[in-house]
Amino acid sequence: MLVHGKPYRTVWMEGREVKMIDQRQLPHVFTIASCASCRDTAQAIKDMVVRGAGAIGVAAGYAMTQAALEAPDATFHRSVAEAAEAVRASRPTAHDLFYAVDRLLEAITGASDPTRARQEAVRLARQLSDDNASAGEAIGRAGARLLRSGMRVLTHCNAGWLAFADWGSALAPVYYAHRQGVALFVYVDETRPRSQGAKLTAWELSQEGVPYTIVADTAAGSLFQHRDIDGVLVGADRIAANGDVANKIGTYPLALLAKHHEVPFYVAAPRSTFDLAAADGRAITIEERGEDEVLWVSGVTPEGTAARVRVAPEGASARNPAFDVTPAGFVTRFITEAGLVEPAPGAIAAFVRHQPTSAGR
Amino acid sequence: MLVHGKPYRTVWMEGREVKMIDQRQLPHVFTIASCASCRDTAQAIKDMVVRGAGAIGVAAGYAMTQAALEAPDATFHRSVAEAAEAVRASRPTAHDLFYAVDRLLEAITGASDPTRARQEAVRLARQLSDDNASAGEAIGRAGARLLRSGMRVLTHCNAGWLAFADWGSALAPVYYAHRQGVALFVYVDETRPRSQGAKLTAWELSQEGVPYTIVADTAAGSLFQHRDIDGVLVGADRIAANGDVANKIGTYPLALLAKHHEVPFYVAAPRSTFDLAAADGRAITIEERGEDEVLWVSGVTPEGTAARVRVAPEGASARNPAFDVTPAGFVTRFITEAGLVEPAPGAIAAFVRHQPTSAGR
Repeated sequence: MLVHGKPYRTVWMEGREVKMIDQRQLPHVFTIASCASCRDTAQAIKDMVVRGAGAIGVAAGYAMTQAALEAPDATFHRSVAEAAEAVRASRPTAHDLFYAVDRLLEAITGASDPTRARQEAVRLARQLSDDNASAGEAIGRAGARLLRSGMRVLTHCNAGWLAFADWGSALAPVYYAHRQGVALFVYVDETRPRSQGAKLTAWELSQEGVPYTIVADTAAGSLFQHRDIDGVLVGADRIAANGDVANKIGTYPLALLAKHHEVPFYVAAPRSTFDLAAADGRAITIEERGEDEVLWVSGVTPEGTAARVRVAPEGASARNPAFDVTPAGFVTRFITEAGLVEPAPGAIAAFVRHQPTSAGR
Repeated sequence: MLVHGKPYRTVWMEGREVKMIDQRQLPHVFTIASCASCRDTAQAIKDMVVRGAGAIGVAAGYAMTQAALEAPDATFHRSVAEAAEAVRASRPTAHDLFYAVDRLLEAITGASDPTRARQEAVRLARQLSDDNASAGEAIGRAGARLLRSGMRVLTHCNAGWLAFADWGSALAPVYYAHRQGVALFVYVDETRPRSQGAKLTAWELSQEGVPYTIVADTAAGSLFQHRDIDGVLVGADRIAANGDVANKIGTYPLALLAKHHEVPFYVAAPRSTFDLAAADGRAITIEERGEDEVLWVSGVTPEGTAARVRVAPEGASARNPAFDVTPAGFVTRFITEAGLVEPAPGAIAAFVRHQPTSAGR
């Protein structure tokens, strides 16, 4: 996708360095972070320089490539295994991170010698990035068929290209259709407490020239009542076998509003988001995050300096569940790289078990 | 209600000065603003030093008293009439402000001479304040009957004593029950964009010692799903003849969630909030406020300095509807100074038309 008119991926490798857009500083400052070593890349994942399931997975793949490039021949396998532990520990609940580390380890340990292992790691990490970007583009193509000129779409959080290698999930259909000349308008939920909508989604859309406006999370009900929303497009963190969707806190109330006002509610996600091991939403543990995310807000002052301000009184407490679960019955369709999928166990299992033929998966 | 253990009203008069708690600086700094003249008090209303329908009405009554005290005998009626225009212009959409100005003008112009008019103004403005406080206490008494120890209540925005002369509407039952030893827990919605929940409601509850926690507006759905909410208590800005409720943006989604999860949804409001001239919610104009309230957040820095930060990218736009309308069918009961009222046209008309006997109304 474009930044100041120039195409970028969220994470990439140049020589032995892993480069990534520093998402902690967006939307106020656009800078590229450089990670010279596997250790640096793992720290960047931990510090949330990069966030979003797909993007974390790609970064972890590159971190493992750095591990292979750095490991001395004499202690090659032990060094790589130690590095894998460090990468895994950077975000211990990120499903895509474990997937990438495992795939890289498998390729590295399966190679006949360290030199071949390093070549294979470089190839596979790039392949994982390309696959992630391709899945996003395919989601975009499939979802764009649902969009017509004049439609007003509501989205929540950031399920755009910054959360993946490229394209994104919920926003991929918007980008795909926009590039085909379909005139869309996007309502962007602020998405408190971390404000990924106001910060990241607004920034992405402005870079691509997609018309949008930000609304407080409280305003969605009023928009539905006034028939200002023609469809809802959100991403997902995990989708259970029955179609229950764990996604950013605040997704479920939007699904309830959409159902009540008879507006389609689409969940866009690649195959890797579906977890057949989770029978339904009750099997998904919801992370409770620190209260400071609710009590404080970060941004820039009128003078342009990064700052955080406490909104609540001193001594106030907050609860901060990071995700909620939208029951499958509220989902109109899943938008996947294989097209639309019904929110029903049979259709989900058939989609997930149909492995793609790409060498990367 | 109590501040640092000492009882306060939101607005009061000392000699010729109107005093008010400066709500712009809460919860970070507690200061009393002094308004030496009618012009100062009107400016304070305009600048939102005082906010909340009931509190604005009381402040307007005192402003008119100042006008009567300041007006020279020679041009008494003309001076008072000019002052009335200035007070009306301070918040041109505030229903209670017009009510108070009209009541004071009537009393002032009806008096036989300026001296009697001034005495009458002093008496009536205090009466309006006392009536407002009494209505809040009566709402508290009526609503407290619905509350039992162990209940967890969700509230939105600030419909506490800061919005009235004293007691409040939605929070009055909480205070009343709490003082009787009923153990309640309050979930406080942050209430973006102006964060009156995180700022004012949290502050009020902490001063009264009521246990509470703040949640982002996005978290309400998750709380309902986990059966963490036993009842919803909100205030209202205007209630139509059929029971439709205009209240702070974000109220309607809570009503929909409450209905879906079979949790009672109570709207607490004094008689003055009911507007029989509005047939239903469609007759209520919804104010759209400036986008900066969404794009920026104010608070204090870690060093304790007041500051505002921009959350969204430079150049971003926002829509900012200030209120939404909850259909009467979502309201379990109105809690009023005359007890519980059914959300039905007949019951509402009977309640509104039964004029109280107090000299002040």
